[in-house]
Amino acid sequence: MNRLHNGDFLLTWDQDDATLRAVLDTAQALEDLARAGVSCKVFDTGLGVSIFRDNSTRTRYAFRSGCNLLGLMTEELDESTSQIAHGETVRETAAMIGFLTEVIGIRDDIFLGEGDKYQREVAAALAESHREGVLMQRPAVINLQSDLDHPTQSLADLAHLVEVFGGIENLKGKKLAMSWAYSPSYGKPLSVPQGVITLMTRFGMDVVLAHPPGYDLVDETVETARRFAASSGGSFAVTDAMAAAFENADVVYPKSWAPAAVMRERTRILHAGETDSLKALEREALATNAKHKDWECNEAMMRGTTGGSAHYMHCLPADVTDVSCVTGEVSKAVFEKARVDTYREAGHKPFIVAAMILLTRFADPTELVNRLAREARPRRAG
Amino acid sequence: MNRLHNGDFLLTWDQDDATLRAVLDTAQALEDLARAGVSCKVFDTGLGVSIFRDNSTRTRYAFRSGCNLLGLMTEELDESTSQIAHGETVRETAAMIGFLTEVIGIRDDIFLGEGDKYQREVAAALAESHREGVLMQRPAVINLQSDLDHPTQSLADLAHLVEVFGGIENLKGKKLAMSWAYSPSYGKPLSVPQGVITLMTRFGMDVVLAHPPGYDLVDETVETARRFAASSGGSFAVTDAMAAAFENADVVYPKSWAPAAVMRERTRILHAGETDSLKALEREALATNAKHKDWECNEAMMRGTTGGSAHYMHCLPADVTDVSCVTGEVSKAVFEKARVDTYREAGHKPFIVAAMILLTRFADPTELVNRLAREARPRRAG
Amino acid sequence: MNRLHNGDFLLTWDQDDATLRAVLDTAQALEDLARAGVSCKVFDTGLGVSIFRDNSTRTRYAFRSGCNLLGLMTEELDESTSQIAHGETVRETAAMIGFLTEVIGIRDDIFLGEGDKYQREVAAALAESHREGVLMQRPAVINLQSDLDHPTQSLADLAHLVEVFGGIENLKGKKLAMSWAYSPSYGKPLSVPQGVITLMTRFGMDVVLAHPPGYDLVDETVETARRFAASSGGSFAVTDAMAAAFENADVVYPKSWAPAAVMRERTRILHAGETDSLKALEREALATNAKHKDWECNEAMMRGTTGGSAHYMHCLPADVTDVSCVTGEVSKAVFEKARVDTYREAGHKPFIVAAMILLTRFADPTELVNRLAREARPRRAG
Repeated sequence: MNRLHNGDFLLTWDQDDATLRAVLDTAQALEDLARAGVSCKVFDTGLGVSIFRDNSTRTRYAFRSGCNLLGLMTEELDESTSQIAHGETVRETAAMIGFLTEVIGIRDDIFLGEGDKYQREVAAALAESHREGVLMQRPAVINLQSDLDHPTQSLADLAHLVEVFGGIENLKGKKLAMSWAYSPSYGKPLSVPQGVITLMTRFGMDVVLAHPPGYDLVDETVETARRFAASSGGSFAVTDAMAAAFENADVVYPKSWAPAAVMRERTRILHAGETDSLKALEREALATNAKHKDWECNEAMMRGTTGGSAHYMHCLPADVTDVSCVTGEVSKAVFEKARVDTYREAGHKPFIVAAMILLTRFADPTELVNRLAREARPRRAG
Repeated sequence: MNRLHNGDFLLTWDQDDATLRAVLDTAQALEDLARAGVSCKVFDTGLGVSIFRDNSTRTRYAFRSGCNLLGLMTEELDESTSQIAHGETVRETAAMIGFLTEVIGIRDDIFLGEGDKYQREVAAALAESHREGVLMQRPAVINLQSDLDHPTQSLADLAHLVEVFGGIENLKGKKLAMSWAYSPSYGKPLSVPQGVITLMTRFGMDVVLAHPPGYDLVDETVETARRFAASSGGSFAVTDAMAAAFENADVVYPKSWAPAAVMRERTRILHAGETDSLKALEREALATNAKHKDWECNEAMMRGTTGGSAHYMHCLPADVTDVSCVTGEVSKAVFEKARVDTYREAGHKPFIVAAMILLTRFADPTELVNRLAREARPRRAG
Repeated sequence: MNRLHNGDFLLTWDQDDATLRAVLDTAQALEDLARAGVSCKVFDTGLGVSIFRDNSTRTRYAFRSGCNLLGLMTEELDESTSQIAHGETVRETAAMIGFLTEVIGIRDDIFLGEGDKYQREVAAALAESHREGVLMQRPAVINLQSDLDHPTQSLADLAHLVEVFGGIENLKGKKLAMSWAYSPSYGKPLSVPQGVITLMTRFGMDVVLAHPPGYDLVDETVETARRFAASSGGSFAVTDAMAAAFENADVVYPKSWAPAAVMRERTRILHAGETDSLKALEREALATNAKHKDWECNEAMMRGTTGGSAHYMHCLPADVTDVSCVTGEVSKAVFEKARVDTYREAGHKPFIVAAMILLTRFADPTELVNRLAREARPRRAG
């Protein structure tokens, strides 16, 4: 049974294990079909609408290419040229862009405490309009990054790990270090580390979260990771030393983020419109960051990992020392060795998006994918 | 006979009754097919180009989703990133974006006396380039809102009324109050009230236009409404009291607009680049508006309508008191009761656009829609 | 044999004559099919991504409509809303937007010495990612205008000349004057004149390049033109008098451009961020331009051409005296006579783009086009 049918994909921890496995399996099947040149077009017409409240290259591309793979035309709701600012409520806009729409992808990761709420508001509005007969179908909402989770990223990461270790069962007992890393910027969202710790703990991995004191994630996500670890037979620990986290790690995911407290204060300031406070906060946050320049994933740090060569992961773009900045999250040598592999990691994302669309829109996506394989229509002329 | 074939849709009053009924019938047929999950794709490839000279959410969506429903890919001519500002003439641009284009939708409602002219210029340029053999087909121009009319809106409104009253014949003798209403903004276009009075008078309705002294519409449209009322057996009257208009009204359409004289002066000022005059005009217009805060569609006002519960209409977004502003066009209580119904009203728009495309592009759209129904290809896989 | 298969189209002088003829023939075949209402859709799904680092109306439309003609959905990488500025390398971005992409069109003509390099960097990055198995196919890069060449324009120009003179063989011995012309703007790219002189010399034309002293093109392109003229049996000459170039010319292409030296200095200044120097350079360049207001293609100038009526060409938009400026590249009378014909010239571009896509993506495009003709699926219903 496909529990996602007619639903949304907002947080991985809202979904049961079987659903997550179904997303992975469907994504893999679609990727296999695409590589074999088989058409995955299941929509004759229909729209995928995206709303990006923050810049994006790869998630935007993943959404659009995932939609196109299935036959949907994409359209972006540009809030600057739309009339949303003119007093429209979320409820109204949701109905207005839902009439012939199959899926709405939303990125809203800037304001802590708001992104997920906004996505749920849109989903509730769509549900209401569908119930009332306004919408002929209920478009699915897909989280393209919120303040809490970044499921298309974390599931692409998981798909990548499954590939690297030769099966999801092989993740059991593998140690993953999700570590904060230094970056000469501040205000990076928390959704990636939160997405990773809450997802990887479910498949029996030993996840260690490392960050300097104060760089806490949102409590709910840490508790969720702890709970999942307990029930999956994996483990979850928090440390304030990168080296400790890297010790015997099979996988390392060094990435910068802002402390939840800073993100909360930033949200408050932005709403209050206190420009000066914002600059002060930024100065302060950067100064605090600068105390932790040793949180760099370099060859010395990698030496402590399993075989000295843990699998390096990143959602990209990474801040690479001597490449994109003077001191960054990762040294040039470590990054260069892993670079092409991080592209592979990212390459799963369009198929994760497409899988989420298939699962939310069709009762039996497995049968549908099987049918695509049997029919084997070519994706392009001979 | 389909008189729209190879033509444009600019003003409803350019079209005969049979053509308008054909638009309604075709839109209804397409909506029925879409709700039944039947594909309406009639184009294998082809483009729908839109030009928005003003912000837009719902009309933009309606245009794009209407195009997608029929199989056209949409493309927006962004005048800020295009070279139009570099000395291109309308004639040239029209040819340049017409080569493989089936339809061009234009919104140009800011400058009174210009929007409709611009649309006709584009249409004439396309016709010339087609005649000369430059364009292999003559793209249709569809008015997505001009200074004179907003036909995709008014026809969606009409489709809604047909649904509410159970048939176009049942509109005869029904009273519709198209009334100005207070809004804390100035410079709202006139095309909606003009579109409504000129269209609804054609189907035997008793239309009353109400506005404070000075808030005149463009003369041509008022005269057109009067003429249509005379020949349809309906009636048309103008009053300067909202309450008088609402008296025994079956339908109320309370909406703010700027006086035609203000819009004309604004156009003059904008062209002259007189920034200070513009601010003075705005101050003055808002002050005049503020004298009419009692022009609010509230429960007291509704009490005078037929059964105390006239059908409320709005093109959205409405300025709702206590929701999007302190005092607005409509009270929260009245709007909330009608809210979902205004979504239904808007829901016809994508199909009205699609119908206009079918009628301008195909000699026999009725036979085409019938064929779609017979073939009944599913809009999406099983 | 199709040498473009799995390659890129960056510079016409990288391609052999047979390949250029294949582009022309394929474009012609596609245009014939489109005019006959036959579908040219060869992709079931797939993406065409465009990157515009400069404004564009007609090349943008040509790219999008060419993609749509073949069944590709287009997507624009908007560098302002993407994360490219956040430290991404070209290598990374290329991979990220390549996963399900068939073709990437790039316009980068602002900085002399950089556009072509950037396009080659993207192409190399795509090739690497494909080799590494990251990309399931290697997207083609198509030059939509660089600092060196503008092949979709020059090949559309060539297609137009073939039509005007009734066959490519008839271009032999025809004289073409590629002449600088006055414009009240500065900093216009060099790619059009460079594209024209390097391409037309290959088909036996007698090409004369005319410009005031100092308005040199990039040396490499002038040398290339000379070399091609020598081997094709045509000729190539440079003169500093418009009238001399026009003398007995069969075709004239009067167009403004900035001296290569000015463009190089401008590039240096822009990189150095010297705002004041930029203004000084502009003032100086405009002053120098103003000395050559007599470089106007007017009726007196045309009198010297073959029969007094050489074929006038322009890539559009032209600076037309008394229309878009006080004094420009061409007089109103000359332009108006040729106007519709310049639209025809531009009309080949979507098909040139589509032909480039077919040749880069398919091993045997001729057989493919023949099959489209045999199957003769209609491009739209009934």
